[in-house]
Amino acid sequence: MTWDVADAPNRATLFARAFVDELAKAGVDAVCVAPGSRSTPLTVALDDHPEIRVFSHLDERSAAFFALGRGKRTGKPTPIVTTSGTATANLHPAVMEADRGRVPLVVLTADRPPELRDSGANQTVDQEKLYGSAVRYYADLPEPAAEGRKLRSLRTTAARALAETRGTKPGPVHLNFPFAKPLEPTDVPPDDPSGVPEDFAEEHPLAAVGRDGPFVSVTEGRAALADADADRFADLVADADRGLVVAGPMDAVDSAPAVADLATASGFPLLADPLSGLRFGDHVADTPVVGGYDAYLDESVTREWPDPDLVLRFGASPTSKPLRKYLARTGARQVVVDPTGEWREAEFRATDLVTAEGESFARAVADRLDRETVTRTVDTWGPWARAESAHWDVVTDARGAEHFEGAVLSTVAETVPDPTTLFVSNSMPVRDVDRFAEPRVADVTALANRGASGIDGITSSALGAGSAADGDESEETVLVTGDLAYYHDTNGLLALGRCDQEATIVLINNDGGGIFHMLPIEEFDAFERQFKTPHGLDFAPTEDIYDLSFARTDLDGFPDCFAEALDREGTTVVEVHTDAERSHRTRERLKERVLDRL
Amino acid sequence: MTWDVADAPNRATLFARAFVDELAKAGVDAVCVAPGSRSTPLTVALDDHPEIRVFSHLDERSAAFFALGRGKRTGKPTPIVTTSGTATANLHPAVMEADRGRVPLVVLTADRPPELRDSGANQTVDQEKLYGSAVRYYADLPEPAAEGRKLRSLRTTAARALAETRGTKPGPVHLNFPFAKPLEPTDVPPDDPSGVPEDFAEEHPLAAVGRDGPFVSVTEGRAALADADADRFADLVADADRGLVVAGPMDAVDSAPAVADLATASGFPLLADPLSGLRFGDHVADTPVVGGYDAYLDESVTREWPDPDLVLRFGASPTSKPLRKYLARTGARQVVVDPTGEWREAEFRATDLVTAEGESFARAVADRLDRETVTRTVDTWGPWARAESAHWDVVTDARGAEHFEGAVLSTVAETVPDPTTLFVSNSMPVRDVDRFAEPRVADVTALANRGASGIDGITSSALGAGSAADGDESEETVLVTGDLAYYHDTNGLLALGRCDQEATIVLINNDGGGIFHMLPIEEFDAFERQFKTPHGLDFAPTEDIYDLSFARTDLDGFPDCFAEALDREGTTVVEVHTDAERSHRTRERLKERVLDRL
Repeated sequence: MTWDVADAPNRATLFARAFVDELAKAGVDAVCVAPGSRSTPLTVALDDHPEIRVFSHLDERSAAFFALGRGKRTGKPTPIVTTSGTATANLHPAVMEADRGRVPLVVLTADRPPELRDSGANQTVDQEKLYGSAVRYYADLPEPAAEGRKLRSLRTTAARALAETRGTKPGPVHLNFPFAKPLEPTDVPPDDPSGVPEDFAEEHPLAAVGRDGPFVSVTEGRAALADADADRFADLVADADRGLVVAGPMDAVDSAPAVADLATASGFPLLADPLSGLRFGDHVADTPVVGGYDAYLDESVTREWPDPDLVLRFGASPTSKPLRKYLARTGARQVVVDPTGEWREAEFRATDLVTAEGESFARAVADRLDRETVTRTVDTWGPWARAESAHWDVVTDARGAEHFEGAVLSTVAETVPDPTTLFVSNSMPVRDVDRFAEPRVADVTALANRGASGIDGITSSALGAGSAADGDESEETVLVTGDLAYYHDTNGLLALGRCDQEATIVLINNDGGGIFHMLPIEEFDAFERQFKTPHGLDFAPTEDIYDLSFARTDLDGFPDCFAEALDREGTTVVEVHTDAERSHRTRERLKERVLDRL
Repeated sequence: MTWDVADAPNRATLFARAFVDELAKAGVDAVCVAPGSRSTPLTVALDDHPEIRVFSHLDERSAAFFALGRGKRTGKPTPIVTTSGTATANLHPAVMEADRGRVPLVVLTADRPPELRDSGANQTVDQEKLYGSAVRYYADLPEPAAEGRKLRSLRTTAARALAETRGTKPGPVHLNFPFAKPLEPTDVPPDDPSGVPEDFAEEHPLAAVGRDGPFVSVTEGRAALADADADRFADLVADADRGLVVAGPMDAVDSAPAVADLATASGFPLLADPLSGLRFGDHVADTPVVGGYDAYLDESVTREWPDPDLVLRFGASPTSKPLRKYLARTGARQVVVDPTGEWREAEFRATDLVTAEGESFARAVADRLDRETVTRTVDTWGPWARAESAHWDVVTDARGAEHFEGAVLSTVAETVPDPTTLFVSNSMPVRDVDRFAEPRVADVTALANRGASGIDGITSSALGAGSAADGDESEETVLVTGDLAYYHDTNGLLALGRCDQEATIVLINNDGGGIFHMLPIEEFDAFERQFKTPHGLDFAPTEDIYDLSFARTDLDGFPDCFAEALDREGTTVVEVHTDAERSHRTRERLKERVLDRL
């Protein structure tokens, strides 16, 4: 500890040190900071703290997504600090994603003192409740003062904010700090209004130095089923003839192992979204994990199948639209399990909403099933197994032989080292990983910003997620992105050098918005001008700006090029040039081929 | 007109066409669009309209600042269209700047229909009142339907939003459009819920095709002084011995000529902020324009001066802190004139607040003074004239001889062609133009994002401002920016090729946040790590990405290099490498030299 909370040279420093002290005591070991003047007290206190690593960024939007990526990977917040003014608004996209994606994110904005608000003072905007309904908790902090109650309040607020960000519904919190000058750790006479009395720590030891651990230890109960309810759901599962477990994108709290156990215990096929934590992992060896549904859940196929009679849904709504539509048309009893009681089922076919942690629900039901004998009267797995087999055969045959971007995701998912953090961009990569990444026994953590599904901040989110594995040298960070997302967050590449990060970045470049080929707008005049939007950008010079290796290849050369990139030290961008329209046609053709086999 | 409002293939298209019809009828001739699916109805209608130019952008943050720059330059809004989700949050920084800087900005966000909100549906966030207190007007529009009242409401809302954005207090407005499929101009049977009855236009001609001009013509009265009040202020001016006119950054509505006339009529020195519209112009020939105050309004100088007894303030709070502090310590009667009655005087020394348009106030008082004989008992101009002379002599002598970044702004302001739109970044460039740009008889429109004073979106704002002069081939667009701002909005350079823009961009590169040398933090350990923040970025490769010319020079070579860049076709970035610390020391030294002479 290079500084003493109790011996602060002025009130702003006293406040900032006490707050940072609480962050560290609660286990925060990293923060993101964007330079600015008004936030100086917090920045200096964080910089001084020996147990906190500061990731310094220059673009606040990228900084916030970096923090988001870390939060997503770890389930713990990485606070982000900005100065006043538009800097704060630049965090809004990541705050929005953190809200919808249920990712812990602690936003600390510096503000002018109250008398300067709405006064015409420079760089002063209305920062109160800036992120509206997107945050779990907001507080406009008191002005720094050497007063015992104010400091106890500050320490309490720190504990509360950290608890709210990791509560039942993890998400962003926002604390707004009014700071008046001096902002630096400048010595001020103790009797100055901005000073700290010499005997302050003596008079207010608790306020000044806090406790040995967090000022308030927070214990939060989580929603769990009553025994009778657990019995009821276990009976429901045991009695079902044809059940399914559907795991959508999962939140930071990790319910995946319990859900896998439930699938195993019930004998239900486990439809695993790539973002569920269940597409990859040891459980794939002995759980019937289904991954190709996005391709074959066509009405022409499923009308021949017996309908499921029970669907247990965990996590958010699945990425796959064919899956969502299939679930909607089956008429099955659909049980949506959500720890917050939020109703995430936009086809409005859910019959049961269970407010419980996915883990505790799955565990309670699975445990009860283990004690019974589950006998299926119909082989639920049968049609699914045949469909899976047809799909993966078609994909494997096509890879290397036909032009489709999905071959990239198929190769990546199959060949990334064990362990890997695999971040995929929204738009096409997440859809392609959903359809073309075969379930695999490997520690691959697949992540995407699927809360609000933007293509902003993707590079930063991936590098932030990767930074969380800094301690584990063996873990790779791989990002699969598209040209629009790569362009959108080029600024995020600054974190490579500035924050000492490494990644292998696969850039699928089809010169524009390939996803629009999947939409009816493709047929209209405005398509080329306003949707497909070719930009003709040459991304190779990002090699020189951000000091990375840039390798250009095509679909044929991709597997080797990717393997080399993984082996290489430092960061490599593997740019794969593709033809979006051709790729889309192949995608359709492969699907037809699977359907023909079924 | 390539399409017929009355013959829309479906309800979403009908609505979008009617809305776009109103925009065009109200004089909107350009929009910014970022590609997306949910916003398809608006995008297609805008693309189809023969009288509306679509500026297509890929980064919504840059798009919004481009629209802001156009609004700032023209006083008219350039609407911006985005899809749902985080795209909308990316506009927030520009919305914030438009609010504080009083710039017209019309934000049109596409949203899911109400039943999909908060349902777990993809890319669906809470967009209601997203920008909080920053917008002048917000409306969640009705769902598209072929109903007369809904369409009349839509046309009325368009007129209202455009009026609000250009009202007494110009600023951003936000309209949120819920769209359900089909989003494309797909033909739908007339009896489908999403269809349009064949006789709709016949039954509802007003709703379907609107009027010849705007659906509602808006006439807005502006606050003007009662005769008795105008007489009173004219007497006050006539009776003052030593008055000053202070013009801070002015809003879009142009009060500058009237304020210049008032200064001439009253004989008061006119302290002209570079963003007031009064630092440059024909009036400089015969109005006592003061521009160097930022350098010499030191207490050591002004304590020898007779205090002013009356200060008439127009526009926002001046950029110059020395000027603000001087006004605060004089004890003069300070009259703040603001059309909205907002109190933009953060030293809290104002004695009078006048709610009136600057133009009407200045005109009313000046007209009355012309009818009287104003005789000053003290030569107010005397000390100001001596100080101005000393300052500009010192600056001219130092230019080319000593290392200071202000030499760049001095050269730029002196040599840009007549006419030029000169955009300056926040942080150092705006301060340097304030201190080192000598008043000049030339049509130079100096602009900066001084509402919230961010360094985000600078390039886009400048290119947007420049795009407004597209009709005038003779007008140059010059941007003076710093390395952090250039990095922050590199994405904005896409508008050069994509939106067919040209500019001369002066990039002052001191590898980090030079402004922090002006702050006490310079003395502390954290300075180099968290504030000065050297990034070591090589910006030359932006030449290849964005197809521009990149010229690197130093302070000595700058004048020639800049002159060549102005002569060259296309866009040139002139990168001037400087030493922030050395520059800061020179800045201080020059100031001392001026003070010594006074």
